Amino acid sequence: MGEFVFHFGGDAQSVDPRAQEKAVVGGKGANLAQMAAIGLPVPPGFTISTEICAHYAGGDRLIDDDLRAQVAQGIAHLEAATGRRFGDPVTPLLVSVRSGASVSMPGMMDTVLDLGLNDVTVEALAKASGDARFAWDSYRRFIQIYGDVALGVDHYLFEDALEIAKEDNGFFTDVEMEAQHWKALVSEYKSIVETETGAPFPQDVDAQLWGAIAAVFDSWDSERARTYRRLNGISASLGTAVTVQAMVFGNRDQQSATGVAFTRDPTTGARQCFGEWLINAQGEDVVAGLRTPQYLTRAAREAAGAKPLSMEEAMPEAFAQLTGLFTKLEEHFRDMLDIEFTVEQGRLWVLQARSGKRTAAAALRMASDMVGEGLITQQEALLRIEPMALAQLLHPTLDPDAPRDLLAKGLPASPGAASGAIVLDAETAERRAERGEAVILVRVETSPEDIHGMHAAVGILTARGGMTSHAAVVARSMGRPCVTGTAAISIDAAKRSLSIGGRQMREGDTITIDGTTGEVMAGSVPLTRSELVGDFAVLMGWADQVMAETGRHLGVRANADTPAECLVARQFGAQGVGLCRTEPMFFQAERIDAMRRFILSPEARARQKALDHLLHLQRDDFRQIFQDMAGLPVAIRLLDLPLHGFLPESQADMATLAESLDIGLDKLRRLAGEMHEFNPLLGLRGCRLGIAYPELYAMQLRALFEAACEAAQTHAPAQLEVMVPLVSSAAELAAIRVQVETIAQDVFNAQGLTLSWRLGAMIEVPRAALMAGTLAGEAEFFSFGSNDLTQTTLGMGRDDAARFMGRYVDRGIYGADPFITLDEAGVGALIALAREQGRAARPDLELGLCGEHGADPASVAFCLAQGLDYVSASPYRVPVARLAAAQAALRAG
Amino acid sequence: MGEFVFHFGGDAQSVDPRAQEKAVVGGKGANLAQMAAIGLPVPPGFTISTEICAHYAGGDRLIDDDLRAQVAQGIAHLEAATGRRFGDPVTPLLVSVRSGASVSMPGMMDTVLDLGLNDVTVEALAKASGDARFAWDSYRRFIQIYGDVALGVDHYLFEDALEIAKEDNGFFTDVEMEAQHWKALVSEYKSIVETETGAPFPQDVDAQLWGAIAAVFDSWDSERARTYRRLNGISASLGTAVTVQAMVFGNRDQQSATGVAFTRDPTTGARQCFGEWLINAQGEDVVAGLRTPQYLTRAAREAAGAKPLSMEEAMPEAFAQLTGLFTKLEEHFRDMLDIEFTVEQGRLWVLQARSGKRTAAAALRMASDMVGEGLITQQEALLRIEPMALAQLLHPTLDPDAPRDLLAKGLPASPGAASGAIVLDAETAERRAERGEAVILVRVETSPEDIHGMHAAVGILTARGGMTSHAAVVARSMGRPCVTGTAAISIDAAKRSLSIGGRQMREGDTITIDGTTGEVMAGSVPLTRSELVGDFAVLMGWADQVMAETGRHLGVRANADTPAECLVARQFGAQGVGLCRTEPMFFQAERIDAMRRFILSPEARARQKALDHLLHLQRDDFRQIFQDMAGLPVAIRLLDLPLHGFLPESQADMATLAESLDIGLDKLRRLAGEMHEFNPLLGLRGCRLGIAYPELYAMQLRALFEAACEAAQTHAPAQLEVMVPLVSSAAELAAIRVQVETIAQDVFNAQGLTLSWRLGAMIEVPRAALMAGTLAGEAEFFSFGSNDLTQTTLGMGRDDAARFMGRYVDRGIYGADPFITLDEAGVGALIALAREQGRAARPDLELGLCGEHGADPASVAFCLAQGLDYVSASPYRVPVARLAAAQAALRAG
Repeated sequence: MGEFVFHFGGDAQSVDPRAQEKAVVGGKGANLAQMAAIGLPVPPGFTISTEICAHYAGGDRLIDDDLRAQVAQGIAHLEAATGRRFGDPVTPLLVSVRSGASVSMPGMMDTVLDLGLNDVTVEALAKASGDARFAWDSYRRFIQIYGDVALGVDHYLFEDALEIAKEDNGFFTDVEMEAQHWKALVSEYKSIVETETGAPFPQDVDAQLWGAIAAVFDSWDSERARTYRRLNGISASLGTAVTVQAMVFGNRDQQSATGVAFTRDPTTGARQCFGEWLINAQGEDVVAGLRTPQYLTRAAREAAGAKPLSMEEAMPEAFAQLTGLFTKLEEHFRDMLDIEFTVEQGRLWVLQARSGKRTAAAALRMASDMVGEGLITQQEALLRIEPMALAQLLHPTLDPDAPRDLLAKGLPASPGAASGAIVLDAETAERRAERGEAVILVRVETSPEDIHGMHAAVGILTARGGMTSHAAVVARSMGRPCVTGTAAISIDAAKRSLSIGGRQMREGDTITIDGTTGEVMAGSVPLTRSELVGDFAVLMGWADQVMAETGRHLGVRANADTPAECLVARQFGAQGVGLCRTEPMFFQAERIDAMRRFILSPEARARQKALDHLLHLQRDDFRQIFQDMAGLPVAIRLLDLPLHGFLPESQADMATLAESLDIGLDKLRRLAGEMHEFNPLLGLRGCRLGIAYPELYAMQLRALFEAACEAAQTHAPAQLEVMVPLVSSAAELAAIRVQVETIAQDVFNAQGLTLSWRLGAMIEVPRAALMAGTLAGEAEFFSFGSNDLTQTTLGMGRDDAARFMGRYVDRGIYGADPFITLDEAGVGALIALAREQGRAARPDLELGLCGEHGADPASVAFCLAQGLDYVSASPYRVPVARLAAAQAALRAG
Repeated sequence: MGEFVFHFGGDAQSVDPRAQEKAVVGGKGANLAQMAAIGLPVPPGFTISTEICAHYAGGDRLIDDDLRAQVAQGIAHLEAATGRRFGDPVTPLLVSVRSGASVSMPGMMDTVLDLGLNDVTVEALAKASGDARFAWDSYRRFIQIYGDVALGVDHYLFEDALEIAKEDNGFFTDVEMEAQHWKALVSEYKSIVETETGAPFPQDVDAQLWGAIAAVFDSWDSERARTYRRLNGISASLGTAVTVQAMVFGNRDQQSATGVAFTRDPTTGARQCFGEWLINAQGEDVVAGLRTPQYLTRAAREAAGAKPLSMEEAMPEAFAQLTGLFTKLEEHFRDMLDIEFTVEQGRLWVLQARSGKRTAAAALRMASDMVGEGLITQQEALLRIEPMALAQLLHPTLDPDAPRDLLAKGLPASPGAASGAIVLDAETAERRAERGEAVILVRVETSPEDIHGMHAAVGILTARGGMTSHAAVVARSMGRPCVTGTAAISIDAAKRSLSIGGRQMREGDTITIDGTTGEVMAGSVPLTRSELVGDFAVLMGWADQVMAETGRHLGVRANADTPAECLVARQFGAQGVGLCRTEPMFFQAERIDAMRRFILSPEARARQKALDHLLHLQRDDFRQIFQDMAGLPVAIRLLDLPLHGFLPESQADMATLAESLDIGLDKLRRLAGEMHEFNPLLGLRGCRLGIAYPELYAMQLRALFEAACEAAQTHAPAQLEVMVPLVSSAAELAAIRVQVETIAQDVFNAQGLTLSWRLGAMIEVPRAALMAGTLAGEAEFFSFGSNDLTQTTLGMGRDDAARFMGRYVDRGIYGADPFITLDEAGVGALIALAREQGRAARPDLELGLCGEHGADPASVAFCLAQGLDYVSASPYRVPVARLAAAQAALRAG
């Protein structure tokens, strides 16, 4: 069978490249072998290759002579490297045994530590460490875990025995147990094993070792592991490796220690040693929090004003050895590393080194620095940054050190944090904001009528709705922090009061929300804003450059409805506006009145007068947008919202409206009632409105072309794109094209200039995708409205789905929330179909995507792979999309 | 160029088969040529072939010498056949000129009559007819239409001149105009033509003829014609033919007449002459209603007790000649014919013969008779019956002779007619029906809560909703007449009164509704029920036989929710139940209480108790259904309706419920409010419910399998199909399959017998169709739920779409209402995709369709072409679907 046990550490000189391959020795084994190979002081060990697992799990569970011989050589290698002997009563070699597949996989065997302990060697360990309590505790832990995983003894039996032991001694915690108590428990544990298995706990260390190896192989075939593999499409033939490694102890004496070090500061990204350690301790002591870890460097200790010596001061040699490894490690792994180390009697051992977790700010700085240092390329730097983390940097965050009075937790719907006074409706929000007050709008859920209040507020908090509810979507597009679905809120609108997490509060009380975590806190929590403009700009520049180099293209535009949003978008590098919704323009006070008069007036003259008024206002909006986006494409979406969306909801507002329209309240109620829809998403909206009320689209089109002509007097003309929502038939588009042509020509004649424009269809219902070939006959571009396309393709309303989507994702019914990450199998198939048929009919058909998915990295990668021309994202997510696009281009190669 | 002017009538002896081909001489020309060819006395004429149009419209508008020569020969043929001469001052030949493409096409030139009239020939016509008024009126009509279509004079100018002439003479109607007035108007008309065209009205009859021919060719290229062709996919190269035919006059003397005859009675189908005529009159006189037409036969005259002689009595020779043609005509056209005829001075002319319109009952009888007579084959007979007309026969209809007091008109949502007392809610309906009263449930719209009231009522009338609204769908499945969308209804629930078409009525007043026409009438209108069981049964037998002979297969099942519906379905020949909805079972009084307790009880025990109660009841329902459908497949759909659909709507009902649940009304309102959904169609329903509340499906499955076992004790086992609604992912189906397997096995073990069952997915959302390959891994059958699939594919709620679908169809944006006829381009494409991928994954996958489209003939044809195994329709539509399937099979060849 050849070599299938691979040594590392000590004087192992394996030249077999398989020794460092994940597929052969598993992730853990490969990492250890690589560290050993570059000369790091890794405790010696060996790994049994995954091949043996396949052989073993294949059926006969055979452990043959050849394997026994190679494992024996492995143990000999450990003995030689450590100067200890496996099972030796004086200087016993203890080992850890762990499973390791090439992919991380729950359901596999837990690590067994301190294998090699028995009634004899436990005494040697006590003596060597000078800590009998530690030795007997280690032994009982070993029996417990080995009994469970290798001998099949129910772990509750051990836990019960421990509980009884503590009760008998009148102890409340494990900490009170002394050496003699642990020793007594070991006896108890051994008799449990004997009772349950019919045989005494194995004292023979070889038997222990083979039991553990077999347990690892058996665990590959466990129910949990098989389920996980099935759900994640992992082949059963991969198998798991088994790594056996010599134990080292940081608690032997005052020349021993244990700690964690980062090669750079994981908070700021600065290139300086960062971490903590404990003298004469083992890793568990750090985790258990029984002793307070100390600083690694003198500078850090002094900065914190701490007394206990830093490692730099107490163990200067070991410290120098440790930091001396940093460059080597970073050069090998090409990243900032998080290192677990142990010093055993003055000798440094590296137990583990892996990419260190970091804040978004640190990630950005390190990526930038490492390129400067020549450690990584720009391309690698780009791939290192989690795109969604960028969003964190663009918004204020809570001061991590400030105390918090947590009231409740909702869904992190729009990143950033904000403090302000509670307001319970949009009008109050606007009124108090005008006085210069910071307010947080708290609603059961928001509706389009709340938009002006959301604009006025510094943050939004809702009791209902998911990550893609109205509040969430609008807040993200505005860059406002938002927490939704906070079930612990109940509002008493009449009393202007509310309860949050059981705490009574009143309108005007101050709260703080963190849209990045979903937390809601009482009072004002101090905020910080990352000052990373430099690194951020550099990174974005690389993204564009790298994108160009790959020869692939995916532009990034913004979903921006107002001049303010356009400015933010352009500042963040948006290459145009991919979606300018015209609904929000109608929701300002004087406008919504006109809109309501148009909708409800019985007289044609009054209706037309209302439209004329709106034309005037809408033209001004458009002109400013065209000026701000001079030279760039701007896709204006014609009115999409059902008309009943513009009607007032409260009885008081209805009464006011009835008066202003001079019709009875009853009649108004009846008119409004007639507009009710069972499923508004599937009703009279989008271009159906434009066909039912041609005068409405006519007003918008006239405003659009007049504004474009005016803007073109002083600015480079924007590239006009007229976007028709909810198209399901080419005939709809053809009818609207005639209207656009007529009005455009009319305006151009009057203004004496001609601008080019294009007409396009939003692909938002499956039929549009299925009819793409004929639609392309009438459309110069398609814009995939992935929110609605997802809702209709899945037959799932995004707000309504919030009630069950969590469970669906947890159970793996959907791999991810389809309203966050594009459902490639369903919605993606329709996009692919539309692209194929659309481009077949019109080869230069422009394709974009403008749903919430436009800034989701996986979705952006899909769009790139599909050959779309651009994605469009809310302004604050434009950088996220740009980075995601560059990463996707790099990964696509 | 060969022959391109084809003669017919007179002694024309064309042997060129092209003379009778629609593609060459147009529909009208071909019909005339065929009639002439079989020896019918058709006024002589000739047709210029479509080929010339292509040539002419091709660009140069050339009318060359060859064409002139062939047209001159055509005129000579007319002159020879009539003994008149074109332009002759004494015996002038007058002709009609009409356009005729091979397909019927609006936008083409109107027929020009009496061409050949001028200042001289008009006098001859006056003399010959002895009616100067008629002659001058004809002349002015000729100038008017010719001026418009051939000379481009705005027709308003003529109309204005006529108005002025009447005013000048103090007349209110055209009837008052005498010969001298018409003559004066002719002068006026001629000067209009001269002023507008710069030339006098052409007196040269050849110039008139060529002007008309050119106008026909020009009209082929008109805006309207081109638009129509584009929208209907008609090639411009087809061209139109021009037919020139000699005019004949039924108003020359008392030996002249005009009339209409049917070869069989179009009301009953009996083989007897039917029709009406007028002596010394022309066709217009019949249409204008100035004189009352008389009976053709003596028998009919006597039966009606009329005085004026019948044609049989007044003109026995012409009558004998006319009826003598019937057999010849029916043998040639193989159908009952509607004949327009004129007798000119004793000579019979047939102007037109086409398939006669007929009632459904007549259609059935004639089809059956004609097969008996050997006139047509069974296959032809089947193809003659309009499947939807069958539905008419299965329901009571209004006595056509009874007087009606029409109140309003709504949409004909479910065929049949009914009279009864108005009731305004389901409870009252049930209460009064229990007393034996016939009631009509009148609602703004219905909801599932009204089902028991709809069952109790003899008819349903709603103010809102379309042809596929809840009321319409349920009414059709119950076979109840239903009129929906009757906007002229407003209900005052508090006062228990309503207004229909402005008429005040109260609960208890009697109305009559006709679900076949949408009419609502005051009082009780007598009903009739067709007694056509014999012919109907015969036809259905042929349908099955013919279907078998074609070697094609498309089964027909029924959508049946109750034992009563199952019985109707089986009687109508359903081959199983394709959809048994379980929701209606929950809406009976004691059941809905249990359902509400399940939904709202805070205690798990109370919830389970409610379910246990339902289990018991549902098992009884299922057992009866399985017994009724013994041996046949029965597809039971697991609960699909969102839970809030079971909650009460009125405040009073809420209060009662709160009391019975022993929770506060406020709390109940809050619980109910939390269940509110923005778009219920896209919410927590279908199998999402089953996954969220596994105990609910568990109850249904247990009831189902226990009932099946019980039924199997005494009856042949039904073929159990468990149908999972609203599937969008294979994982959903897999989860439910585990549940079904467990419960089925449990029940089989307990009952000591095993029944086979199958699990299937309803394909109701586009994603299901797109994922069909993986779904088929878990499903043994697919059932296309075409209602929901249409709603989601088009992004269009069927009830909400009622507000704009009419306009959409009128404007050709959709070719047909997609909720009535399956949208082949969109929804059909998904069905085709699902079939292909599904059968690729599982070759024996069974495919059915169970939406409202299951009885729409075009949709049924699509299902057959797609190779579906069956369609499922509401019980009363099963015969419709069977006939449609047979027709589709025949047409598919």
